[in-house]
This record gives sequence, structure tokens and C-alpha cells, in this order.
Amino acid sequence: MRELYIATHGHYAQGIVSALNLLVGDDHGVTPICAYCGDIGSTAELAARFEAIVQRTISQRKELVLFTDMPGGSVNNTAIQLLVNYPHVHVISGANLIMLMEFCLSEQTETLARIQDAITAASGAMQYMNRQPEILAARQAVSSVPADDMDGFFAAERPL
Amino acid sequence: MRELYIATHGHYAQGIVSALNLLVGDDHGVTPICAYCGDIGSTAELAARFEAIVQRTISQRKELVLFTDMPGGSVNNTAIQLLVNYPHVHVISGANLIMLMEFCLSEQTETLARIQDAITAASGAMQYMNRQPEILAARQAVSSVPADDMDGFFAAERPL
Repeated sequence: MRELYIATHGHYAQGIVSALNLLVGDDHGVTPICAYCGDIGSTAELAARFEAIVQRTISQRKELVLFTDMPGGSVNNTAIQLLVNYPHVHVISGANLIMLMEFCLSEQTETLARIQDAITAASGAMQYMNRQPEILAARQAVSSVPADDMDGFFAAERPL
Repeated sequence: MRELYIATHGHYAQGIVSALNLLVGDDHGVTPICAYCGDIGSTAELAARFEAIVQRTISQRKELVLFTDMPGGSVNNTAIQLLVNYPHVHVISGANLIMLMEFCLSEQTETLARIQDAITAASGAMQYMNRQPEILAARQAVSSVPADDMDGFFAAERPL
């Protein structure tokens, strides 16, 4: 058994959970922790929140998976201090929606395998769509239609 | 000149902008578009919002950079339809906080170079922190202290 959290600067965590609710339903089990807003106004208060969660997961003998927004940030730095003494804690930085979705929907039973799946999926989801083959093909089809005025950056544009 | 938007399911976009405000100040120029909540209740309303932005950027002769939450999702699918006819539009999927921060803070002047920087930074920020060398070293230092009870998953844990 495991508990899942996403901890971030501001309402980013709440925003990801809002999107998760829409995409996978509201039983995904990810709890947002929004730092420097609401009732967590300082790094000390964030550390206290983490410590309370750690102690509860120890008493319930659950693993704790903690996603954070960015390596090097104070949220992540506070989270990784837990790693030294608590082997049941996992911290993954650079979270986004795909990472959490993949972790929640993964069919892997082991936490480490789920984490690897989540990082791989999230990394692969970062795409410059303009270079996708289907976009290039669609553009090619459009550009084969003669245009009257092609002499500027915006001249080739047509309304949808 | 360019305009920047992040478009997502639910309040994810608003959440990222909340974190950006804390980390880089509120003059980053990224506007959130939250689909399926607030005043954008359908894909048709989302498409209409995109079209209005496209027409304004054309009239102002600005590039339009549109980050989305995930490839394959309806938000991204609606965004990439713009790419066929509007060469001044760029769509990048799988956005997260690091991607937007890097794009905003990049010293590159060209949009494509900024996008590449942003994707590289965001991908590199996805880290399983438990395996970072400084964490492994700190754990090693702690584990060299004899423990009275090491017979279970949680037995090696010590309070911070």
C-alpha cells in the first residue's frame, strides 16, 4: 500500500489534481500540497506537513510517493531531506500531468516500476507538435493549393 | 514578438501560472486557458477561444506559442488543428512548470531555440531523487551508525 502526494510552489499541485479528476476520475488517490499559499506559508510549515505525513505512513506501514515540481526548488529540497532517514519515502521531481496519470494508471505492482513508467511516459509526452508527421503531412496537403499571396510570414495563412 | 499560453484540462494551467508567479514574478507573460471548467465548457468553446487568439496574433503580427498538457488529449488535439493553416503557431505538449520557466527565462531570441531549451530542461528535471548521488551519500553516512533494530522495511528509520 502507498500514499501519493504532489507538492509544489503555489496552486500548481491543486491544478494537476483538478486535471486528474477530469481525466481519470476523482479516485486517483493523489493529494495536493500547495506551498507558499493557503495554510503552508513557509518552508518550516511545509517540512512539518511532510513530517506528519511520514509519521502517519510509518504507523500505517505504507510507502509514501511524493512528486514535486522541480529539482533545486525549496519544495523539492525539503522533500529530499526525508529520504536520508526514511527508506519508505520516494521523491520524484519535475512532475506533470502525464507523470501522475501514468503512475496512477500503471499496471505495475512495484512502486519503482511505476515510477520508471511514469518518468518515461512524461518525458515522451514533451513534444514539439509542429514536427509531428501528421502535422507535416496536413501542412503539405494545404500548401499544394496555390496561394495568391505568399510574400510574408503570415501570407500563407488561411482561416480554418 | 510572441504571445504565450498554457492550455489544459481543468485548473492545471492556472496552477502552473500560480507557481510561475511565485518563482519568476508575475511579468512572465503566460496566460492560462482552463478547459472544461469556468467559461470553456466544451471543445467547441475551446476551439473558439483559440481561434480568437490566433486572429488577434495575426493582426498584431506576433508568433503564438501554445503549451498543452498532453498529446492525445482533446485540448492538444484542438490546438494542433491550428497548425495546419497558421504557420505562426507553435504547439508544445506535455508541459510542466520547468518547461514554462525555462522558456520564459531562456536567453535565446529565436522561438524554436527557446522551445528546444524548454523541452530539454523539463525532461532533465524529471528525476527519481532517491538515486541522486548526494542522497545515496547521505544515506550511506546514516546507515554506518549501528541500529538496534533493522529487521523490517521500516526498522531502519530514524526521526529527522
